[in-house]
Amino acid sequence: MRAVVKTGPGPGVVCMDVERPKPKLDEVLIRVHASAVCGTDLGLYRWNAGGQSFAGKFQVKWPLTLGHEFSGVIVETGAEVKDHHVGERVSLETHLPCGKCFNCLNDMAHNCMDMGAYGTSCNGSFAEYAIGPANVVFTLPDGISFEEGALLEPGGVAMRAVDEAAVLPGETVVVNGCGPIGLLTILILRAGNAAQIIAADMDEYRLKMAERFGAVAVNIKEQDVVSEVRKRTAFRGGADVVIETSGAPAAYQVIFRMLRLEGRLITVGHPGGEVSVNWMEDINLRGLSVKGIFGRRIWRTWYQLTSLMAAGRVRLLDVVTHRYQMSQAEEAFEQAGKGAGKILLLPDNTI
Amino acid sequence: MRAVVKTGPGPGVVCMDVERPKPKLDEVLIRVHASAVCGTDLGLYRWNAGGQSFAGKFQVKWPLTLGHEFSGVIVETGAEVKDHHVGERVSLETHLPCGKCFNCLNDMAHNCMDMGAYGTSCNGSFAEYAIGPANVVFTLPDGISFEEGALLEPGGVAMRAVDEAAVLPGETVVVNGCGPIGLLTILILRAGNAAQIIAADMDEYRLKMAERFGAVAVNIKEQDVVSEVRKRTAFRGGADVVIETSGAPAAYQVIFRMLRLEGRLITVGHPGGEVSVNWMEDINLRGLSVKGIFGRRIWRTWYQLTSLMAAGRVRLLDVVTHRYQMSQAEEAFEQAGKGAGKILLLPDNTI
Amino acid sequence: MRAVVKTGPGPGVVCMDVERPKPKLDEVLIRVHASAVCGTDLGLYRWNAGGQSFAGKFQVKWPLTLGHEFSGVIVETGAEVKDHHVGERVSLETHLPCGKCFNCLNDMAHNCMDMGAYGTSCNGSFAEYAIGPANVVFTLPDGISFEEGALLEPGGVAMRAVDEAAVLPGETVVVNGCGPIGLLTILILRAGNAAQIIAADMDEYRLKMAERFGAVAVNIKEQDVVSEVRKRTAFRGGADVVIETSGAPAAYQVIFRMLRLEGRLITVGHPGGEVSVNWMEDINLRGLSVKGIFGRRIWRTWYQLTSLMAAGRVRLLDVVTHRYQMSQAEEAFEQAGKGAGKILLLPDNTI
Amino acid sequence: MRAVVKTGPGPGVVCMDVERPKPKLDEVLIRVHASAVCGTDLGLYRWNAGGQSFAGKFQVKWPLTLGHEFSGVIVETGAEVKDHHVGERVSLETHLPCGKCFNCLNDMAHNCMDMGAYGTSCNGSFAEYAIGPANVVFTLPDGISFEEGALLEPGGVAMRAVDEAAVLPGETVVVNGCGPIGLLTILILRAGNAAQIIAADMDEYRLKMAERFGAVAVNIKEQDVVSEVRKRTAFRGGADVVIETSGAPAAYQVIFRMLRLEGRLITVGHPGGEVSVNWMEDINLRGLSVKGIFGRRIWRTWYQLTSLMAAGRVRLLDVVTHRYQMSQAEEAFEQAGKGAGKILLLPDNTI
Repeated sequence: MRAVVKTGPGPGVVCMDVERPKPKLDEVLIRVHASAVCGTDLGLYRWNAGGQSFAGKFQVKWPLTLGHEFSGVIVETGAEVKDHHVGERVSLETHLPCGKCFNCLNDMAHNCMDMGAYGTSCNGSFAEYAIGPANVVFTLPDGISFEEGALLEPGGVAMRAVDEAAVLPGETVVVNGCGPIGLLTILILRAGNAAQIIAADMDEYRLKMAERFGAVAVNIKEQDVVSEVRKRTAFRGGADVVIETSGAPAAYQVIFRMLRLEGRLITVGHPGGEVSVNWMEDINLRGLSVKGIFGRRIWRTWYQLTSLMAAGRVRLLDVVTHRYQMSQAEEAFEQAGKGAGKILLLPDNTI
Repeated sequence: MRAVVKTGPGPGVVCMDVERPKPKLDEVLIRVHASAVCGTDLGLYRWNAGGQSFAGKFQVKWPLTLGHEFSGVIVETGAEVKDHHVGERVSLETHLPCGKCFNCLNDMAHNCMDMGAYGTSCNGSFAEYAIGPANVVFTLPDGISFEEGALLEPGGVAMRAVDEAAVLPGETVVVNGCGPIGLLTILILRAGNAAQIIAADMDEYRLKMAERFGAVAVNIKEQDVVSEVRKRTAFRGGADVVIETSGAPAAYQVIFRMLRLEGRLITVGHPGGEVSVNWMEDINLRGLSVKGIFGRRIWRTWYQLTSLMAAGRVRLLDVVTHRYQMSQAEEAFEQAGKGAGKILLLPDNTI
Repeated sequence: MRAVVKTGPGPGVVCMDVERPKPKLDEVLIRVHASAVCGTDLGLYRWNAGGQSFAGKFQVKWPLTLGHEFSGVIVETGAEVKDHHVGERVSLETHLPCGKCFNCLNDMAHNCMDMGAYGTSCNGSFAEYAIGPANVVFTLPDGISFEEGALLEPGGVAMRAVDEAAVLPGETVVVNGCGPIGLLTILILRAGNAAQIIAADMDEYRLKMAERFGAVAVNIKEQDVVSEVRKRTAFRGGADVVIETSGAPAAYQVIFRMLRLEGRLITVGHPGGEVSVNWMEDINLRGLSVKGIFGRRIWRTWYQLTSLMAAGRVRLLDVVTHRYQMSQAEEAFEQAGKGAGKILLLPDNTI
Repeated sequence: MRAVVKTGPGPGVVCMDVERPKPKLDEVLIRVHASAVCGTDLGLYRWNAGGQSFAGKFQVKWPLTLGHEFSGVIVETGAEVKDHHVGERVSLETHLPCGKCFNCLNDMAHNCMDMGAYGTSCNGSFAEYAIGPANVVFTLPDGISFEEGALLEPGGVAMRAVDEAAVLPGETVVVNGCGPIGLLTILILRAGNAAQIIAADMDEYRLKMAERFGAVAVNIKEQDVVSEVRKRTAFRGGADVVIETSGAPAAYQVIFRMLRLEGRLITVGHPGGEVSVNWMEDINLRGLSVKGIFGRRIWRTWYQLTSLMAAGRVRLLDVVTHRYQMSQAEEAFEQAGKGAGKILLLPDNTI
């Protein structure tokens, strides 16, 4: 079968023939119908600091088929798989939990103490067929298409951020960074408790999307973001919540001061290396609450998101700006750097 | 000045001349611009069981000027009032806290241990002028009209119910009863996390309003409400939240079974007398959480609601179906029994 | 093997020979080292209303081996069991979750939508050997004895009640009813945030135990429990939390009024049939929160309790007053009615 | 009257005669019976970076009487003071809230948007008499002595940290830093839900006190604190909670890794200047929650702490190691640098 493969360290990928995998006793084989490109895929493709660090953390073995945001149909099941069947339309949770550790046994499987990462610690979904460990298979509800199914994993990161923010009725939320995760976050916030959403970025293309999704856009190159936020939250003295999705170290110079005293910060973006923080002034005296996010809660996040989608309150496809066939993977990766919302990678001969 | 007065026990009210009140040191005098009719006013007017019990609990003294949902402009301030001034547009919290008890000192002033009730334990707002204890005066934000200001108190009951329900993204909420509080609850839910709102009542007039506000309407005379709810929440096995606003004892035969296991019930409506509950089957084995509501949280609820209104997410006036002048008070009370959303009572010569 | 069996409807049990069960693919076989007698066992033994209702709800099939609170050693494992092994010391969660429903997939497996009850919907542990479905096997930590292991299930009900009560530092908790669950609740509260624990019952034997465990005892036959509680919580106006474990319908005449306004009620005891509640006065105007409890959270409760035990903060055996051999089961059941804390049932020839 | 005064910038204090203050309309005058020395007082005395920064933030005006942790008896009341009277035994909340801002009106008065700091933005309590703004006066419950009353303010910081930590039954808490606040935190934790308390410091004098209060002590100069914590929390993979009270920048190299995945960090100590944090590795991928603390919640914290004290569960005086008379203030400040728990400053001629 064809697959988008990274053959070793260094930049780049190849689209090549590889052997179709066989499911183990507790796995299913899935015919892939749609994948989406994640920042992690990009980091591995570009082989930048983030990509190398991620590959190291999850002990990648070469060659590696990339991709982990996807959907498809089960075509084969291992002998011990009981809860899934051939013909079932599915998506996949990509945090692979051990099922035995304290976190797995206490509703924190998304941050398992011995966790694998689909598409990094094992082969991924940029291929005609992909393996799915049965315990991370999620059945697609009827009204959800394959393209939407491929967005449940990244949409789930945004959903989790919104869930952890626990936005109270009437609050103002700043989304710092309008990459795909930031835009998905805005889409989901729009269907919830927030009175006001403020989007901050320096890219006009993305800010225009944010505005279309219902946010007030602030271009941080042109405006002082802290005073813009405070102007719109005068009586409260700042935003109630900031969701930081940019991963830019420079963000840590402003995100604390955007918040009102006793406000809440959710950090989803991953800054490379160390960031410098005036902990006393910015966290203690401000009385802030901070929560670092990594992945979706299993399966809470999945049901939250698909319930909103089923009710027509969130349309994930609004975030998609480009579609490519699998053999155009390099083109897709390059487009991501030039200006894009979410990019889908579809099977060859389907567009 | 003119006022709508209840001169003693028994049904009815009179519109009559009374002396204009003088504010004490820590009070303000307010020129009333708009009032709304509450179920409590109706109960006192009709002198039914609810009205008598409420009058007893709050030790009414005759004659009593009715009314407690209102807005106006401060025209005089007592000598010790520092935070409010003549000319200020205001509304009033009607739970009068002592400021000294454990509840007042621990963010539960809405359920003060020595609480008064505006318009019952003291004279109310169905008059040209009304007294406002300075510590319960709420300044109307600029964009909020007097008519909206008169709805902040009942809107606040709905807001509080929604706040206590702590609806998670994607959940289904049943609003049981579509009187004014039920309808306000739907309006506010519509601006929040719920994926789906189901409204239950037996009055077509109200159900039509509920539908217009975005709820799925179930007429409990024509349909089995429990199975209708379960049909729409199949995978979850019931609603995540029920907000009971009808106060009908019969509601307690169905509200538990509308909920999924481990669901949440918020009771806002006040059933008269005893209700019979199969506590083991309906509460323990179902693992339900129940919260009884009485009034708004001070000032949390007020800021939540006005923040949603300022952002254009909630339009309280959608619930108003009738407006009367003060001298038509009896007509207004009678209309309430014939079919109405919320009814406003405005100063004479203003409609 | 020998087992304590109920051969059909009606009062009584027989100790008789039955076939030793064989584990299925996903089950283990356990040599029983200790069991404890639960109120459910008593209800089935006596065949009272509670017992009949429970048998009906969980579709009992005769003959039935009773017992579900126990510990032992795995002596055989089914072919698909991976996480447990022969020789392992274990206890068992007795709520048998399906693993597929909304509740199971959202951290509410203890109240599964298709739940079985060990020792009612299938044979139990009052026998030489018992079956354990692998997904409900809990490995005993090293320092925990078999007798303690047999108390993890009922201790877990108490632990869950305390966990749901979310006692804040300095609060006063009333435990209404000092049967085994009430006494276990006091033991666990004693190791937590509460400043003061008040125990209410009418049985001096049990009240003495409650006192020994650190509670203030109130004999409800001799004292007015509401005013006793209020006397000890004067400034707060009542207890912050009531944990009702008696299951007595009469309790519903006092438990609401023992609480301060905005207090919390946890109901663990199961009153048979309907109870009458003045919902407006007792729940709404008081602003109460109520949570019905059924079983332990899986595995949260188990780790909470065993962590407290491992640190020496809770000694479950303090609640044990009687030990019997399995062939003395009837004697054990009879003692339960005469005055007892928790009763253990041990293998024959071991005492 | 005599007072311990700082006459201007630079190190040192003088004990000198100053005019006895007169209470304004909404103030009371208090005869001081006991004060305690806080790190803030020390910073101002030594005129180190922390002291200068604090003086700047709260716009100190010279000369300044130091001290803010104290108790005494009201000897005079302003004309508008209604809720307090001459002869009343009191302590004082030292965060002075404006009463009008969003935070004050929403149960966050401890972090008021226009807050004063008693003993910095106005004169303090190291004097024979001190002023108390009526809205921050706390009446001492009967069983609480003046010396204990002087410890309610710093004890309240510890109480708040424990409250925000929301320790669940069975959890392990690390207290990083065993200065007075760390020691008070341990005393309070000991009366709560934690199964295990681990205290980290490099000072043997303080570690011995921590041990006496029930903690496991780890000397970070001699042992690797991260592996010591993990050894004692093996199955959980780290502590559930870390309460950082040291304020040492170096702490930020270890406090994250002491925690299990999805653990909680409470920061009470104030590191001077910037600290460097690997936000991705230490906060996001670990899924940590962080809460910065500044002051007590008004009045929630005060009632929590005094309720625990009234029940005999917390004895604040255990943390006191030295007592001085006011005229020995310099000696007291010097002792603080040489090894001490909490130091009390009492009126002259009383020891």
